[in-house]
Amino acid sequence: MIINITIIDVVTVLGTAAFALSAVLAASEKNGDIFTILVLGIITAVGGGTIRDILLNIPIFWSQDLSYIYIASLSALGGVLFFPLLKSKWINKGYLYIDAFAIAMFCIQGTQKAWDLGFGLPIAPVILGIITAVGGGIIRDVLLQRPSLLLTSELYAIPVAIGCSIHALTLAYLPDFSQFSGIVSVFVVIYLRHLSINKDVQVPSWAILKSSTTNK
Amino acid sequence: MIINITIIDVVTVLGTAAFALSAVLAASEKNGDIFTILVLGIITAVGGGTIRDILLNIPIFWSQDLSYIYIASLSALGGVLFFPLLKSKWINKGYLYIDAFAIAMFCIQGTQKAWDLGFGLPIAPVILGIITAVGGGIIRDVLLQRPSLLLTSELYAIPVAIGCSIHALTLAYLPDFSQFSGIVSVFVVIYLRHLSINKDVQVPSWAILKSSTTNK
Amino acid sequence: MIINITIIDVVTVLGTAAFALSAVLAASEKNGDIFTILVLGIITAVGGGTIRDILLNIPIFWSQDLSYIYIASLSALGGVLFFPLLKSKWINKGYLYIDAFAIAMFCIQGTQKAWDLGFGLPIAPVILGIITAVGGGIIRDVLLQRPSLLLTSELYAIPVAIGCSIHALTLAYLPDFSQFSGIVSVFVVIYLRHLSINKDVQVPSWAILKSSTTNK
Repeated sequence: MIINITIIDVVTVLGTAAFALSAVLAASEKNGDIFTILVLGIITAVGGGTIRDILLNIPIFWSQDLSYIYIASLSALGGVLFFPLLKSKWINKGYLYIDAFAIAMFCIQGTQKAWDLGFGLPIAPVILGIITAVGGGIIRDVLLQRPSLLLTSELYAIPVAIGCSIHALTLAYLPDFSQFSGIVSVFVVIYLRHLSINKDVQVPSWAILKSSTTNK
Repeated sequence: MIINITIIDVVTVLGTAAFALSAVLAASEKNGDIFTILVLGIITAVGGGTIRDILLNIPIFWSQDLSYIYIASLSALGGVLFFPLLKSKWINKGYLYIDAFAIAMFCIQGTQKAWDLGFGLPIAPVILGIITAVGGGIIRDVLLQRPSLLLTSELYAIPVAIGCSIHALTLAYLPDFSQFSGIVSVFVVIYLRHLSINKDVQVPSWAILKSSTTNK
Repeated sequence: MIINITIIDVVTVLGTAAFALSAVLAASEKNGDIFTILVLGIITAVGGGTIRDILLNIPIFWSQDLSYIYIASLSALGGVLFFPLLKSKWINKGYLYIDAFAIAMFCIQGTQKAWDLGFGLPIAPVILGIITAVGGGIIRDVLLQRPSLLLTSELYAIPVAIGCSIHALTLAYLPDFSQFSGIVSVFVVIYLRHLSINKDVQVPSWAILKSSTTNK
């Protein structure tokens, strides 16, 4: 049990840091200054969970535990200081895997939190899980005027949705296995992200709706 | 009374579906995948009411009644399956009228809900009515990086504002006639939208502020 | 005491008006119509405080006191009527100083409000102060598809962050001097904005992160 909590803590720290670092990379494309990067790092790291808590009408998680703000701030500043390292291919891939771990953990955590509060069972917890995992990144992209991750053909939100759905289905029909399904869901999300990162698996083209007025 | 409720139910279903279909059309211009369209369909359909409920500090409506989520999801998926039909001129116009019906219903419903809760009478209910009707569409446009409907010269938000204002004025000064004014307001919104859709009536050019530095 | 309240009232009115006028200027670049400008004026004026109150989970301030809505509406409409005046260099500079006063007042007020409610002391009040001051402007820029003020090299959000930090530090370590620090913080913010407006002081280039793939 103690080990379990420690692992979750480690993952939360790494995940929050990964989210903040994604903001450093994104903001650098727009020549953001250090303060902007700090702000975007924090927003990206806690944005999804903030929307989740507003929808659940419960106290915002980072007002109860400021460590999320500290971790995001330090990671963003660290990312600025060691920016060439962050851009290097090797680190960049490592960071993508930490990010995959982060979205996997946060989506299951968000689904679980909404489920425990009986928020619109059984579908709404899936929605809140997705929001927890990708909400911060979407706000980051909107503020930076980048195409939102909703519009890439990369496998990003879909793995999250599948993970949340597996966990919600288990909570609904096999509640005794919820701890097990949480772990399985995390690995499913990471595996699908791995396929995207390393094998370049994309959303299949038949699943992409093209307006008939465009030729491509 | 029973008939009344049924009509409102039918309108709510049709309106929610129309909002979701608008997301299918908008996302197709950006080559969105099915999952993105599903997400945008849900956000467009329930986004405005969600902001309203957050501002009112009451439980989010779709967490109490998931049918909105189901209707939006099914409509978005249906819109993808029958996309050529949705793009056809005849259906497209029909859909614009259903959308007109939807924004009319939702703006009056939002105004009424805020009024019943005594939220910032008498002006704030008008604001919340407008948010309920057009908020989802604005989030959709921001996420898709399209010019927001606030920036078109189409008559869209203005009819909604007029409808909400008529209803709020009646609630303030002639509360006995509120049911009547609700119906009148809905028809006013639909009529103004009809002028825009079918007669190409636009915001008059004198009402458009042009920066003196631009020539057109 | 009575004089104090009156000064704060005057500043609040001027600040709210300045925010609404900023929306008139911004929307004119996009040829917005009067209704759009009215909506954006209100959103810009009350947006930041609205997000703050949602995060604090307290009633939205403008639902308790509609005067903010009235002031923002009148200012936006006034800005449209006297638009050539607003664009004139002399007035424009005066407006920038009123805006500086506004963000200074609102950021201290937001920090204080969060502090009084014990919201995530000692860091979260700084965040909420910044949100109160610049949140409305950011929403305005997102809706108008302008580069957000987070992405300019102008000194705008940084002065606000410094002001909020000074005030929060005083509240934490020298609470007896909080009234004094509030006034000092306001002047620090205004002075830094003055340097930006009149002396063209910008974010130093070493503080701007440039992606190594771009040459400039």
